[in-house]
Amino acid sequence: MTLSPKPSTTLPDTGIYERRESAVRTYSRSLPRQFNRAEHVWIHDDNGGRYLDFLSGCSSLNYGHNHPILKQALLDYIAADGITHGLDMHTDAKARFLEAFEELILQPRGLDYRVMFTGPTGTNAVEAAIKLARKVTGREMVVAFTNGFHGMTLGALACTGNTGKRGGAGVPLSHVAHEPYDGYFDGDVDTVQVLDQRLSDPSSGLDAPAAILLETVQGEGGLNAASPEWLRAISEVARKHGALLIVDDIQAGCGRTGSFFSFEGMGFTPDIVTLAKSISGYGLPLALTLFRPELDVWSPGEHNGTFRGNNHAFVTAAAALRHFWANQDFEADIARRGGLLEARLDRIAARHGLTTRGRGMMRGIDVGSGAAASAITQACFDKGLIIETSGAHDEIVKVLAPLVIDDELLSAGLDILEGAVRAELGSTLEIAA
Amino acid sequence: MTLSPKPSTTLPDTGIYERRESAVRTYSRSLPRQFNRAEHVWIHDDNGGRYLDFLSGCSSLNYGHNHPILKQALLDYIAADGITHGLDMHTDAKARFLEAFEELILQPRGLDYRVMFTGPTGTNAVEAAIKLARKVTGREMVVAFTNGFHGMTLGALACTGNTGKRGGAGVPLSHVAHEPYDGYFDGDVDTVQVLDQRLSDPSSGLDAPAAILLETVQGEGGLNAASPEWLRAISEVARKHGALLIVDDIQAGCGRTGSFFSFEGMGFTPDIVTLAKSISGYGLPLALTLFRPELDVWSPGEHNGTFRGNNHAFVTAAAALRHFWANQDFEADIARRGGLLEARLDRIAARHGLTTRGRGMMRGIDVGSGAAASAITQACFDKGLIIETSGAHDEIVKVLAPLVIDDELLSAGLDILEGAVRAELGSTLEIAA
Amino acid sequence: MTLSPKPSTTLPDTGIYERRESAVRTYSRSLPRQFNRAEHVWIHDDNGGRYLDFLSGCSSLNYGHNHPILKQALLDYIAADGITHGLDMHTDAKARFLEAFEELILQPRGLDYRVMFTGPTGTNAVEAAIKLARKVTGREMVVAFTNGFHGMTLGALACTGNTGKRGGAGVPLSHVAHEPYDGYFDGDVDTVQVLDQRLSDPSSGLDAPAAILLETVQGEGGLNAASPEWLRAISEVARKHGALLIVDDIQAGCGRTGSFFSFEGMGFTPDIVTLAKSISGYGLPLALTLFRPELDVWSPGEHNGTFRGNNHAFVTAAAALRHFWANQDFEADIARRGGLLEARLDRIAARHGLTTRGRGMMRGIDVGSGAAASAITQACFDKGLIIETSGAHDEIVKVLAPLVIDDELLSAGLDILEGAVRAELGSTLEIAA
Amino acid sequence: MTLSPKPSTTLPDTGIYERRESAVRTYSRSLPRQFNRAEHVWIHDDNGGRYLDFLSGCSSLNYGHNHPILKQALLDYIAADGITHGLDMHTDAKARFLEAFEELILQPRGLDYRVMFTGPTGTNAVEAAIKLARKVTGREMVVAFTNGFHGMTLGALACTGNTGKRGGAGVPLSHVAHEPYDGYFDGDVDTVQVLDQRLSDPSSGLDAPAAILLETVQGEGGLNAASPEWLRAISEVARKHGALLIVDDIQAGCGRTGSFFSFEGMGFTPDIVTLAKSISGYGLPLALTLFRPELDVWSPGEHNGTFRGNNHAFVTAAAALRHFWANQDFEADIARRGGLLEARLDRIAARHGLTTRGRGMMRGIDVGSGAAASAITQACFDKGLIIETSGAHDEIVKVLAPLVIDDELLSAGLDILEGAVRAELGSTLEIAA
Repeated sequence: MTLSPKPSTTLPDTGIYERRESAVRTYSRSLPRQFNRAEHVWIHDDNGGRYLDFLSGCSSLNYGHNHPILKQALLDYIAADGITHGLDMHTDAKARFLEAFEELILQPRGLDYRVMFTGPTGTNAVEAAIKLARKVTGREMVVAFTNGFHGMTLGALACTGNTGKRGGAGVPLSHVAHEPYDGYFDGDVDTVQVLDQRLSDPSSGLDAPAAILLETVQGEGGLNAASPEWLRAISEVARKHGALLIVDDIQAGCGRTGSFFSFEGMGFTPDIVTLAKSISGYGLPLALTLFRPELDVWSPGEHNGTFRGNNHAFVTAAAALRHFWANQDFEADIARRGGLLEARLDRIAARHGLTTRGRGMMRGIDVGSGAAASAITQACFDKGLIIETSGAHDEIVKVLAPLVIDDELLSAGLDILEGAVRAELGSTLEIAA
Repeated sequence: MTLSPKPSTTLPDTGIYERRESAVRTYSRSLPRQFNRAEHVWIHDDNGGRYLDFLSGCSSLNYGHNHPILKQALLDYIAADGITHGLDMHTDAKARFLEAFEELILQPRGLDYRVMFTGPTGTNAVEAAIKLARKVTGREMVVAFTNGFHGMTLGALACTGNTGKRGGAGVPLSHVAHEPYDGYFDGDVDTVQVLDQRLSDPSSGLDAPAAILLETVQGEGGLNAASPEWLRAISEVARKHGALLIVDDIQAGCGRTGSFFSFEGMGFTPDIVTLAKSISGYGLPLALTLFRPELDVWSPGEHNGTFRGNNHAFVTAAAALRHFWANQDFEADIARRGGLLEARLDRIAARHGLTTRGRGMMRGIDVGSGAAASAITQACFDKGLIIETSGAHDEIVKVLAPLVIDDELLSAGLDILEGAVRAELGSTLEIAA
Repeated sequence: MTLSPKPSTTLPDTGIYERRESAVRTYSRSLPRQFNRAEHVWIHDDNGGRYLDFLSGCSSLNYGHNHPILKQALLDYIAADGITHGLDMHTDAKARFLEAFEELILQPRGLDYRVMFTGPTGTNAVEAAIKLARKVTGREMVVAFTNGFHGMTLGALACTGNTGKRGGAGVPLSHVAHEPYDGYFDGDVDTVQVLDQRLSDPSSGLDAPAAILLETVQGEGGLNAASPEWLRAISEVARKHGALLIVDDIQAGCGRTGSFFSFEGMGFTPDIVTLAKSISGYGLPLALTLFRPELDVWSPGEHNGTFRGNNHAFVTAAAALRHFWANQDFEADIARRGGLLEARLDRIAARHGLTTRGRGMMRGIDVGSGAAASAITQACFDKGLIIETSGAHDEIVKVLAPLVIDDELLSAGLDILEGAVRAELGSTLEIAA
Repeated sequence: MTLSPKPSTTLPDTGIYERRESAVRTYSRSLPRQFNRAEHVWIHDDNGGRYLDFLSGCSSLNYGHNHPILKQALLDYIAADGITHGLDMHTDAKARFLEAFEELILQPRGLDYRVMFTGPTGTNAVEAAIKLARKVTGREMVVAFTNGFHGMTLGALACTGNTGKRGGAGVPLSHVAHEPYDGYFDGDVDTVQVLDQRLSDPSSGLDAPAAILLETVQGEGGLNAASPEWLRAISEVARKHGALLIVDDIQAGCGRTGSFFSFEGMGFTPDIVTLAKSISGYGLPLALTLFRPELDVWSPGEHNGTFRGNNHAFVTAAAALRHFWANQDFEADIARRGGLLEARLDRIAARHGLTTRGRGMMRGIDVGSGAAASAITQACFDKGLIIETSGAHDEIVKVLAPLVIDDELLSAGLDILEGAVRAELGSTLEIAA
């Protein structure tokens, strides 16, 4: 683990993309290389460049790239002609996944969820969750939160706060009210009380909701981490008003915040949970919607999808659960490493009069503007560190390093980040001082 | 290829599914086995059963299960630690896919489409298509058709005709008008004229549409195949009224109807095309939205998704294109085989006074009721043939055999089907006769 | 009754309108006079002009302007300080109206409707009707028809077919499907069958409707008169599919088509009926929604409105009912006069190869284009006849003479119309001949 | 003016209502008499009862019932066969109204509004206002406020906060966000800042609004009076974010709060204003939408309505403007009388530990619960005082006395109210003390 980043300076030939790929592509603009190989925390380009990955597929690669144990399980499965595409038929791979999920995730946590295999995208899991909540309650409105991000299909997009994303809908986004998230008004306003008052008031104009949908840490919305007290209180508001509580754990789940689910140990249990991103463990498409058994009122096939039985993902997901979640070592690792990350980011932030955000291994620094953040991430990339931004104005530089990163490499990456922050913001503060 | 089906009679232990999987599962109910292995046209269960697959993952496995060439390409890629999850970064695997798609699919057909990698589900590709059409035209209404099926997320579901699926939305489905498909009124009504009149009439109540969205053969809606004349006329209606024509080729594309795109050779070119299901060739999740370059008005990231860079699928997709679409042999094969299928189905139908539906290797028999169809497919399964139904009342027994099936096995499967139809319907007709 | 029209040629000073009235005004553009007095079939302008009124306030003045008996009743009521504004309190005037309506309208026709006094506009009555249908059925979709016109507020506007009106909404108009009206496809298509098939088909994309909403003669949409057979069949389709049948009788009711309700004697009874326009008899704002008693599930005040107790209108409405509807003489008059109108219009139409539309005293001629119709109505106005157009393209010249017009004046007005048609269309036909 | 109320104890025969009027009626339940005559502040029943009217048609009778000057103008107009129903034609009566409105209302206040005559209901004026705002801005969302009340048709109802009213829609109410009104969170939260932050934040989920719609005093929502500072700040928020400011002055306008418009002298000018209720002065249906000339982008007839030319109302409206608004005496009267009202209500409230609400002659007492308020208004009615409630829980006893009431009768009515409050709440407090 003494490797250091080695960015390449040669730009690849991108003719095929210019000719054929839609202008909607985005990361290829800020990371202008053609990548061809990856392992652990490293991603390699065509010209021999090597990059330390602090993006991790937006938290889809919590166990790093191509983890050898998962890789071997997948190679074996493919070699043996295991079922690849199974619609929603029973398959060995699915059974193995469900057994591992039951044994290692649900039972130890005292959770009794049913598992719904939706189409293998997070947005599909969210659509299924809100459909189910509407069906169960007979209500239509969903309460989501400022800065929430839940996906790009029409139902999930209506729950998403970002104006740019919403504008892509081309039709008005309905049946969702966005309420202020924890800390939205700089702590001056009790946002639980605000929501409770509006739901209690028969003249507030806020219709009785089918569900309250939230992320415990808002991944795209700026790494805002709700406090346990706020989350617990919102869960009580949901129960009080007959709404189901949906935790969208697509980005914050699968260990990112320190525990498998981001809401563990907080004294409440969501009615519905969505998972995607790192659930397959290998970056393969997989998405789940979990819910209390009493809520399982679906008719067969009422929500379906061609790729809901992506068995390759079941295989790697089961392998990941057995490797990382059979005991508490991994959680202890994340806790310790998250502590290191926190300490380093706090120090960097303090030096520049900035603030940090987030929880566990899902943290960032608010550098004040999207322009500054962009300059910093660009400078990092030039040093071989892949790191991206988040927030309403893209003003948060976010660290989503693989959870399996060793401390030395985490430090090495943070050194690069620290240097880039200093280069961008240093002079400003010195003038101010 | 002298193998014959060998169904197993032992039912598997389904405890884990009963305990943990949502009641939304459906195929596992009509195909009550646990499958563990598949190759070519065969799918195997835990108890040594062997089934001939006339479902093909709802047309997601046009090249059969685990095709050896695609499999080897995938194994090699994984073994070499190729990029698995790439967001929308440039990767070798994506470039190879785009090059093959340009060289083998687009250029020979004189098509100049941009490729958008949406979230890897068909419904996501449809959502992207209608978003784009709305953005380009500044209009909100989409015209879809009776019996159309386009997906389960809110935007695509609004375009889907099926009442049961629609009912799952829990909110009213808006901004879409369903107009009668070709032949909807038994040929008595010119449905092109009906649509044109309504769009031409400033008092019809049908708002000017952003897009007209259709399948050339309605896969879920009953294998209704529109005539080339109808499709061409609808394409003219779209142009006349300033609407974009979207062909949803998710089920009918990738060779299912005989050519790569289902609309080839018909004298019109859609503005937007969606592909999914068999585009990866191996059953891996992948979905594309194609459109004319002038329509590529997306802002970067305006529609995104975590798994839009499923590189495993790029690898198998490129391999499939190079293996099957480098010359016209495969198309010739499908044409011949589709002819065999048509002849056999027509004969079966004629014997029982039934009608057939469909085109190419996407055909079925209308057996008059969902109950009859269910009895027939159940009887087939008991003989080792996996076959499913389609249509508003599930009254169509549909044959979606792998396109690569050899004639002998196709015949063997159709023999089973013929027997099952006779067993179910024979006596009725004899009474009638 | 030997008076003839005497149009004035002096244009009024319209400064105050230019300065202060919104550009939304419309009739003042085609009828550029300032009117100050009216009686019977005559309307007078500031400069001594006298106009024969074949517009009748768009059928709001079926009994002519300022009918002396109604006028005296109103003068007496006002002089005696009768209640003017009564919210929905019980008042003598309301009781007298309800008694007359029960005794003279409902009971003789065997109708057992409850009367809801909505806000005094037709659009409000329609909004109440569809709200109630949605509440009773728990469904959201309403089926309306091509060329239907039901009002300008958002709920009613969604039911209106006219593109120009719809475009004013500024938001998409939802929860309504427009189906083809009787004869929409020139008789080639059985539009009842079309609707029934779509509602019977679980895959048509047409959700189960709360209501089917129609006009028996489409006043604004071109004087299309549905046949009794079609209306009866649609009423059966509604019952079959659990939808309420709403007849919007705002323009066609109150005697316009020959009977009090436009649907009398056709063998079906609507579940809900809306009335407005001529129900007050004097042109005063009043609107009613009638429904079967079993449908009266409103909570008190669930739909309200400040002016729902317009007692002046109750007074004139009761007087009108007692004067015109106490026996069948008036209906006989309308029938005879409608026959005269029909014969004259048919003759005019025949001479120019045109067609006529409508029923009773609600008839018009299709002159082929809005331009021709506009030229004709303008020419009529120049001769002292106020007459307007209707239809998707404003191509129908419509005669909405007061029902009380004597035959001589009706003929005099039709003479003017005939001359104007000949002046506009005559040469064209002669060239053709 | 030494008359005192003389309630009758005989209940009228209500058979006709039971048989024929919809259950939606409401005031007739709390005021169970049949009324037949009214003048000034008095309303009389069939049995000789005489009631002091502190409801004034929900502020539609600001000048009292059947004011003699307006009455005579109307009688003269009717006697002379003035135009009754004029669609939107130019009529003398309309010109007289517009001239008076321009001369006495707009010019003295430096306002340059265009006048749109909508259908004669407040809800129609609101629908026109939001349509226009959407058309002008090309945006779809409207920001309305908690406890706002704007009408019952679908577009206006979406802007209304009351759950019971909203529930009547039967479809989800869309394209409107309800934000907290001034003081909504007991003053702990700066609701201007809350709104501004959400509109400034590109990730708040609140789409850019076409309009911000508010009442300066919420008539139905509990007599909440916004402060001038709040209103001015909201007007700046609207301008900052490109939204039009709509003041719904239907209940608070026409002198109710002390000036003709409720927003006078506050340092801002709304872009659009709605008026109805007392604008005719006589309780006749009339509604206006006013807007800056630059906003007058309507196409002719784009929003229309049969009764938009209710000329009787123009006559009384013009007479009312000339009688009451030609100088400032009336405003001075209201100011003084509103002061008396305020002092009396404050005293009553103080004695019982209650709070008061409102502004000008639009004030009430919060008696803590709907049950208490209902008991109090019932007790008042038994003494001959008609008074009603308001607020989310109907917990505000509201005084909407005619503005023309003399001080003695105002005091007499308030004496009755005071007694009723004491009877209902007195013992409770004594126990508490």
